[in-house]
Amino acid sequence: VVRNLYLSVDPAQRGWASTESNYSDTVPLGGPMRALAVGIVVRSRDATVEEGDFLYGWFGWQDYSLADRSKILTRATLPLPLSAFASVLGINGLTAYLALTGCGRPRPGDRLLVSTAAGSVGSFVGQIGQKLGCHTIGLTGSEDKVGRCLNRFGYHEAYNYKTVDLAAQLAQSAPEGLDILYDNTGGAILDTALRQMRVGGRVVQCGTAAIASWMPPPVGPRNEREVLTRRLTWSGFVIFDHQAALPAAMATLSAWCQQGDLVYDEHVSDGIQHAPAAIAELYAGDNQGKRLIYIG
Amino acid sequence: VVRNLYLSVDPAQRGWASTESNYSDTVPLGGPMRALAVGIVVRSRDATVEEGDFLYGWFGWQDYSLADRSKILTRATLPLPLSAFASVLGINGLTAYLALTGCGRPRPGDRLLVSTAAGSVGSFVGQIGQKLGCHTIGLTGSEDKVGRCLNRFGYHEAYNYKTVDLAAQLAQSAPEGLDILYDNTGGAILDTALRQMRVGGRVVQCGTAAIASWMPPPVGPRNEREVLTRRLTWSGFVIFDHQAALPAAMATLSAWCQQGDLVYDEHVSDGIQHAPAAIAELYAGDNQGKRLIYIG
Repeated sequence: VVRNLYLSVDPAQRGWASTESNYSDTVPLGGPMRALAVGIVVRSRDATVEEGDFLYGWFGWQDYSLADRSKILTRATLPLPLSAFASVLGINGLTAYLALTGCGRPRPGDRLLVSTAAGSVGSFVGQIGQKLGCHTIGLTGSEDKVGRCLNRFGYHEAYNYKTVDLAAQLAQSAPEGLDILYDNTGGAILDTALRQMRVGGRVVQCGTAAIASWMPPPVGPRNEREVLTRRLTWSGFVIFDHQAALPAAMATLSAWCQQGDLVYDEHVSDGIQHAPAAIAELYAGDNQGKRLIYIG
Repeated sequence: VVRNLYLSVDPAQRGWASTESNYSDTVPLGGPMRALAVGIVVRSRDATVEEGDFLYGWFGWQDYSLADRSKILTRATLPLPLSAFASVLGINGLTAYLALTGCGRPRPGDRLLVSTAAGSVGSFVGQIGQKLGCHTIGLTGSEDKVGRCLNRFGYHEAYNYKTVDLAAQLAQSAPEGLDILYDNTGGAILDTALRQMRVGGRVVQCGTAAIASWMPPPVGPRNEREVLTRRLTWSGFVIFDHQAALPAAMATLSAWCQQGDLVYDEHVSDGIQHAPAAIAELYAGDNQGKRLIYIG
């Protein structure tokens, strides 16, 4: 039995609550919303879990969760505040780190473009890319967030994709082409950036936030010639395939946080009544940092 | 100075002879056609090349070529007929082997779909995939070629993409999804097959033969969601990036040929006057085996 303390609010929840065909089961009407959360074990019959342990897992938007081991994603044992296990050490930071290093294969001097650069994943991708020696270029959707990319997350360059001429800017920012595209949006940003990739470039697909609906199937310019002629490696990444890699990744991220090399922002509201509107805020782009609900 | 013996005829030459924007320079009017060829060294001032050596390289559609070391792709020293160095041991066989093993990462039991399955690359992909334990499914464009896939190249299954309901057939042939798509066509076959890939599948992009022109840019269904949700790795492969891997690959392919595990077909015409029409035949799908011109 886990008593929840921090509930995670994530864009994917919109899809989970929809009856539109999706790659996860629809959350049933009347059931608790599927969600990650950080909680404390109040009763255990599992020899590997003790009362008082802090866990991060699929505990839902509810006060208490009756969980088995399959619901546990990570154990919150590192010396960071508890909320961090649902943000920088949660799926956002872990996705950024494992997708960038595993699929993006960054090398010093690489030009790295990040879409949703100020977001809950992108803000880490930019910092981790910089830490690994990349020249980081961020795209985001407002002048305010451009400022946060530059001043808070340390991007070398950042642009508002709504107002910049992206193809012209990328030709200037990466005259020999982009080595890595870390894409959370899909759509027009992806199409434009693919055509600015360097031969041998890596495209990491971690989200498709720019496409509001896949029914009917949206169309766009054909991209297979870019894959071929630029010898791209275009990979999809979903963190839940990488359970075994999580503890080591958490240790690395935690150390970087303690050294001050990795900053993270959280936007915490107190009380479960704030949870539904928080999803809408994510899609409106109003959040600054990882959206959490505290119910301690 | 290389005296050419076998001239290679390849689909890419149509693009090289066109002024339409392309990723290779246009062959100038009045210059010799850019082409791979097998020839014999008749004079050498390079200490690593002796008179009488057989070479495979960029010697052009001409009787003699004045070449330096940068024009040499491979050295024809293995115990197979000389023409084989422009077919199974040339870029066709080498592309099939290195792209399938390097990007496709085949494992026993994998379901492997090959477009242009009877072609000069695809016919090797099917045989190599079978040799490595894959269940091989070939797509080709005529009933005659379906027969060659099954009877000559050993595909477990083969279909005429012009008459089969591809999505329905793939759902039946690979009920848990395709592990590997080796695609030489792009277009509708690619779009359909992407939507039948298994989670973690590999897509190897070696050609885009189904798209006759990229100007104006053709459109199609957006594919980034397939990359993400199926966690695909979609890679472009061009053999000329892999010079260092060629000798070992040639040794493997040559051994398989001698053991009878790998068959190869050549369609050789005698005399350079047959060369231009041979390109048109490739696009008409009339060839059976690697198209070569003998001028010895």
